[in-house]
Amino acid sequence: MENKNLGLTVAELGEQQLLQRLYRFCEPSMVGDDAAVLTPRSGHHLVVTTDMLVDGIHFSDRTTSPADVGWRSAAANLSDIAAMGASPLGLTISLGLPGTLPVSWLDQFYQGVADCLNTYGTAIIGGDLSRSSVITVSMTALGEVLPQEEILRSTAQPGDAIVVTGVHGAARAGLELLLHPDWGQTLSLTERLALQKAHQRPQPRLDVIQALQHFTPVPRATGMDSSDGLADAVLQICRASGVGAEIQQTQISIPDSFKNSQVLTSEQALEWALYGGEDFELVLCLPLSSAQKLVEKLDSTAVILGQIIAGNDIKLIRKDGTKYFLDLQKGYQHF
Amino acid sequence: MENKNLGLTVAELGEQQLLQRLYRFCEPSMVGDDAAVLTPRSGHHLVVTTDMLVDGIHFSDRTTSPADVGWRSAAANLSDIAAMGASPLGLTISLGLPGTLPVSWLDQFYQGVADCLNTYGTAIIGGDLSRSSVITVSMTALGEVLPQEEILRSTAQPGDAIVVTGVHGAARAGLELLLHPDWGQTLSLTERLALQKAHQRPQPRLDVIQALQHFTPVPRATGMDSSDGLADAVLQICRASGVGAEIQQTQISIPDSFKNSQVLTSEQALEWALYGGEDFELVLCLPLSSAQKLVEKLDSTAVILGQIIAGNDIKLIRKDGTKYFLDLQKGYQHF
Repeated sequence: MENKNLGLTVAELGEQQLLQRLYRFCEPSMVGDDAAVLTPRSGHHLVVTTDMLVDGIHFSDRTTSPADVGWRSAAANLSDIAAMGASPLGLTISLGLPGTLPVSWLDQFYQGVADCLNTYGTAIIGGDLSRSSVITVSMTALGEVLPQEEILRSTAQPGDAIVVTGVHGAARAGLELLLHPDWGQTLSLTERLALQKAHQRPQPRLDVIQALQHFTPVPRATGMDSSDGLADAVLQICRASGVGAEIQQTQISIPDSFKNSQVLTSEQALEWALYGGEDFELVLCLPLSSAQKLVEKLDSTAVILGQIIAGNDIKLIRKDGTKYFLDLQKGYQHF
Repeated sequence: MENKNLGLTVAELGEQQLLQRLYRFCEPSMVGDDAAVLTPRSGHHLVVTTDMLVDGIHFSDRTTSPADVGWRSAAANLSDIAAMGASPLGLTISLGLPGTLPVSWLDQFYQGVADCLNTYGTAIIGGDLSRSSVITVSMTALGEVLPQEEILRSTAQPGDAIVVTGVHGAARAGLELLLHPDWGQTLSLTERLALQKAHQRPQPRLDVIQALQHFTPVPRATGMDSSDGLADAVLQICRASGVGAEIQQTQISIPDSFKNSQVLTSEQALEWALYGGEDFELVLCLPLSSAQKLVEKLDSTAVILGQIIAGNDIKLIRKDGTKYFLDLQKGYQHF
């Protein structure tokens, strides 16, 4: 019977039964009304972010299991919540699904979402199902933040240090491995799996926000996540704040496996670190003393990449001391 | 130049320029960060509802202009906010768009959304654009409500009067006219346009919620909107509350044009009123005295349809006094 059940399609099951099936993944008090009800804590602002992912554009069977599509979609939304300095309150999911899709796809997708949300202490609070010719995932995440702890893109000041968490280029390398399994033969199996996981199961950096919130006082911070690439994040912050930046190539953290395996030239590694995208790390501009304290608190899994300067130039200082101007056109555009 | 501009496609314009173009429809303070920030009033709960609409399933060029798709999508979400007894705080829009879509489609769509939201005193607060093979609209509306004024589906009690606002069957007739222009030849032009407008520009009943909130004290109310049909609303409320209902056919309000033009038999008119859907009216269960006061306050554009009874039966009392049991299977299922 189990096999037969796996072959059941969403059209065969029907909307009402599908909904019943999905309710088990949802916060029970949120199910069954026209809308979900939440109670943000007093004095907090509400943060809202939304995202659409389409089969064949943002994900593909070739690289991403249904559970990974669920995890990645949820993680991308939680990363935007973290990028605002907020804590998550919940997430809604709307899905467009072909009638021929096996119900097992849907079960696995929801399991991936629920696993991600459970990991970060939040839950599915609502959603919608629709028929569509292409699998379409639309999520909206809600979070709460004290007004003085909000992290915007537009408040960076000359002299701020630029802190970058984690490593960059790993998700890009993971995608390469999934698309071209012949690539990276000099990597160990452990290294290959770690890079694939960086692509399939990105970790939103809500832990960094919690670390910041333990500082007394909580420092003024500006920033965003690096979902569209490290270079894009620096450029967006500078553009929104009306400032420039000077960043040091030597400070860009790439996966150790890039260095050891010679799988990439150092130029390629830099390219992927700056423009690869989807690492979902945080790029934060802070007064220098707070930046140093944050790097220490994160056990040096973050670095000070450089500093905010007056003007509009965004300069990358190469290892040999030469300067290079960053170019947004290399960043990812959806159209 | 204007004609050339109308022919521009979303792929030709590119994501960054598209976003710039859409910002003019959005609340200015909400644009440019990873997430929008809202401030719900102190002591209020937050209400969240989400919806996905797909070209060819929920709307079509044959019946709905881009501006109407925008208005209808926004109105459906605001109707869910009203159905919770809440006031709107804002709306996010995610769109999946084919690269070949003219930019003018997008402009008109956004104009329709903005017109609807302006009418009801709220705004676009965020969104996402994605490439897709099929036009896909996903919206999430946020609202706020005092906890004691929340309207759920699960709290109806035997003895409650069932108030229904507006008329039912009009949106269904409007759709028929748009799909089959030969239908309804006995209707006047004014009547035809009014029915089409019921389909293309539904009015979420936030005014009814405001009227209720002016009562002292605000009465306990249970209910939902009639987006999936009047019968479906009564059935969902009864199921969620563990009660039955007795409703009077003579009290069901249909458009005057149905009666005058003999465009429908009375059986067909009843069918469309009960099961047609998309009228976006409210079905509210209230203590009888509050129900009477509400009907009076709404200048008798609402009626008392019947009452909640103990048990599980949902009975329609026909004009001749015979009873008929309502059947949810006739309601709309998406798969």
